[in-house]
Amino acid sequence: MPSEEPAGYLGKAQKTLEKAKVQIGDRISIQTLDNTFEGIVIPRAEIGADDQHIVLKLDSGYNVGIHVDRIQQLKHLQSGKIIEPELPAVPRKTKKGLPWVSILSTGGTIASRVDYHTGAVNPALSADDLYTVVPELGDLANIRADVLFSEFSENLTPNHWTTIAKQTAKHLEESEGVVIAHGTDTMGYTAAALSFALQNLPRPVILTGSQRSSDRPSSDAALNLMGAVITAYQAPFAEVVVAMHRSPDDTKIALHPGTQVRKCHTSRRDAFLTINADLLGEVSDGKVHMLVDDSAYRHRNSKRKLTLQPEFDTKVALLKTTPGMTGDLIDSLIDRGYHGIVLEGTGLGHAPASLLKAIERTQEEQIPIIMTSQCIWGRVQMRVYRTGVELVQRGVISAEDMIAETAYVKLMWILAQTRDINEVQTRMRANLVGEITECSKRSQYEEMSHL
Amino acid sequence: MPSEEPAGYLGKAQKTLEKAKVQIGDRISIQTLDNTFEGIVIPRAEIGADDQHIVLKLDSGYNVGIHVDRIQQLKHLQSGKIIEPELPAVPRKTKKGLPWVSILSTGGTIASRVDYHTGAVNPALSADDLYTVVPELGDLANIRADVLFSEFSENLTPNHWTTIAKQTAKHLEESEGVVIAHGTDTMGYTAAALSFALQNLPRPVILTGSQRSSDRPSSDAALNLMGAVITAYQAPFAEVVVAMHRSPDDTKIALHPGTQVRKCHTSRRDAFLTINADLLGEVSDGKVHMLVDDSAYRHRNSKRKLTLQPEFDTKVALLKTTPGMTGDLIDSLIDRGYHGIVLEGTGLGHAPASLLKAIERTQEEQIPIIMTSQCIWGRVQMRVYRTGVELVQRGVISAEDMIAETAYVKLMWILAQTRDINEVQTRMRANLVGEITECSKRSQYEEMSHL
Repeated sequence: MPSEEPAGYLGKAQKTLEKAKVQIGDRISIQTLDNTFEGIVIPRAEIGADDQHIVLKLDSGYNVGIHVDRIQQLKHLQSGKIIEPELPAVPRKTKKGLPWVSILSTGGTIASRVDYHTGAVNPALSADDLYTVVPELGDLANIRADVLFSEFSENLTPNHWTTIAKQTAKHLEESEGVVIAHGTDTMGYTAAALSFALQNLPRPVILTGSQRSSDRPSSDAALNLMGAVITAYQAPFAEVVVAMHRSPDDTKIALHPGTQVRKCHTSRRDAFLTINADLLGEVSDGKVHMLVDDSAYRHRNSKRKLTLQPEFDTKVALLKTTPGMTGDLIDSLIDRGYHGIVLEGTGLGHAPASLLKAIERTQEEQIPIIMTSQCIWGRVQMRVYRTGVELVQRGVISAEDMIAETAYVKLMWILAQTRDINEVQTRMRANLVGEITECSKRSQYEEMSHL
Repeated sequence: MPSEEPAGYLGKAQKTLEKAKVQIGDRISIQTLDNTFEGIVIPRAEIGADDQHIVLKLDSGYNVGIHVDRIQQLKHLQSGKIIEPELPAVPRKTKKGLPWVSILSTGGTIASRVDYHTGAVNPALSADDLYTVVPELGDLANIRADVLFSEFSENLTPNHWTTIAKQTAKHLEESEGVVIAHGTDTMGYTAAALSFALQNLPRPVILTGSQRSSDRPSSDAALNLMGAVITAYQAPFAEVVVAMHRSPDDTKIALHPGTQVRKCHTSRRDAFLTINADLLGEVSDGKVHMLVDDSAYRHRNSKRKLTLQPEFDTKVALLKTTPGMTGDLIDSLIDRGYHGIVLEGTGLGHAPASLLKAIERTQEEQIPIIMTSQCIWGRVQMRVYRTGVELVQRGVISAEDMIAETAYVKLMWILAQTRDINEVQTRMRANLVGEITECSKRSQYEEMSHL
């Protein structure tokens, strides 16, 4: 969420608000030729579109967008209250017998719901807000809410992952599970990062978010949040998972394994897919239903001692190979002192011959290069064709069936611990937290080709 | 296919063959402790694996891999015949009444079948070879076969696209349709390239390949080739399509639109998926069955005059954004004089704020930046969130629902015609050959989330 005010307004609409000294969250009335609207000015970042409309949340709860050219009079009625994030927030009411669950907010569409509701600029996610937005939560669990930051997830960096990991570790000591509210854009990357950073987990960590802000009728925010909270205290596993809609309708929440999940659609509510693995489970009718065997996950055990390894080396790049690509980009990364490179090759893990010279340079400089596939599904197999063999001979390391995003995060995490290239190779190829599977499993790809 | 001999052999196996002056295609006998094998030495590139085995094609048609340590005696019996590619090859027998179809070979696994069969080094695809490998072709059509080159598709460049386009245009004048045998790794890129290069097509152009070489029992080569040939003379459309298995079994060949198709699995036979669109049709029981309305494609019309625009600007890069990414790579591309950049952003088309400064530099330098989504499915919508709005304000051009690979090819193609940034923007956002759809269509994603 941008910090300037009025948030998200541009051009004409921005000027109109500035002239009247109206801030987001202020109560105003707008008179047009045929109507008068009274309500709270809400941010536009989430609704977007043009620079011609001012959006009010009416007392009815509905939003209305009013074209600036239609405004005959604009009156400032009352300044909005700005919710200051409280760390940690105190839950409204503690109910005996209910499990404790932590909800850590990092921003994104799911957190911005509160924004709309209160009219505040900062997307806060206090326990009070939560209970107001999703009152059912109060019947499920006692919530510890904590706002870590308020960022769209495209702006989250490995430093944010470190903070989330540390805060999650702290909350895991007192709660049955930790829910992380997160923008969907890079949720898969953060899930992988937490999977590596939080070794030896005693209890589950659930990332959730929403594809549509919750003042839209089609919002998925409340159901995802409830599914995540139910998973936090009820799931038999102690794993990092992503909890998001399993289908466009509001019936099931899918639980995706943290290192094998990917946002695969820009806008659908079931945008996330499990890649090269089975879905861990799903939440429906208030219950977690496991979809894999008992042996396929680490079981919840509150006595297990978590090992925190929250550091990431940011001098890592992810490059997709393309026809006609030259060694330019790899050369640039070497020249700029990068510590590691993940390639998204084609097919079974191939790269154009035009890259071989630059790849040889990385070998001389002891910079590990990891091979993944832009196919997304399937395994890298670099010993089937000559191209792959030639890459292996030049030190390129196979990521097996890891998705590129997870290989990128894993390489950052390993390089924060060691720069020894043999050690990097050994750890990259080892299955540390479920990110590599021995043989290809049934997966969501199965259904895909049968339209 | 590598040109050195013995093709694909490494280490110990290579040395053993060199010592006995054995070339690929030669007939030899190998004696081991308990057996004697006689057959033709075939290339290893396709079978891969280690440097310990020599592979013979026995007279029975089966291949056998013999460990070099087990060899007690190796005898050279007869030199192999090397098939010289003939351009254009003369079809074996012309049958009156049968339609003419051209098959242009560029290399890849499908072309290497002939290799195995003849024992020749160069994957040749003469008409004779074809009829021998897939005798059913002779009952379907008269084949004009032409070997353009013998490259794994990861090594094909925009210059190869130009050659393929020109040769296809030539063959289209005389044949009912043109089939292009192509490696699967970058088949989607080439399909997009031909879609733009061959404007105003009179007849269909079909790319096909195989995921497994055809001396494996599970090979998909013959069925894909037959499906492609059937499509070439029978399909009602004049479009560039990819014809590959629709499911792992040998029942149906899917016909994917050339600008909306992507290799999505490293090894499955149904590796290709249509993205953000409907499958055009399928081939089963020797017939093309259309899956879209008559209005959804350009109809076959031999009198339509093809417009050839086969040039591509190679100073274009495709960059995927990642958490923690800095402006380094974009800066490098500007410094190295690149003419255009396609970003694979997150979600609806977002990039980290850390890239904004470098993106502003591209604007100053009049270098177009196109935004696609690494989600793969769905549409880029840069006016929903503030991040997108900020990118649009800095001149970033939305690729709408084009996949990243197609946007990359299209930008190369447009930049070969104009460097005017406004003109580039106009053409990138216009639907030229079906690469952009107005509204999201039913797609193979539908089925995916329902495991």
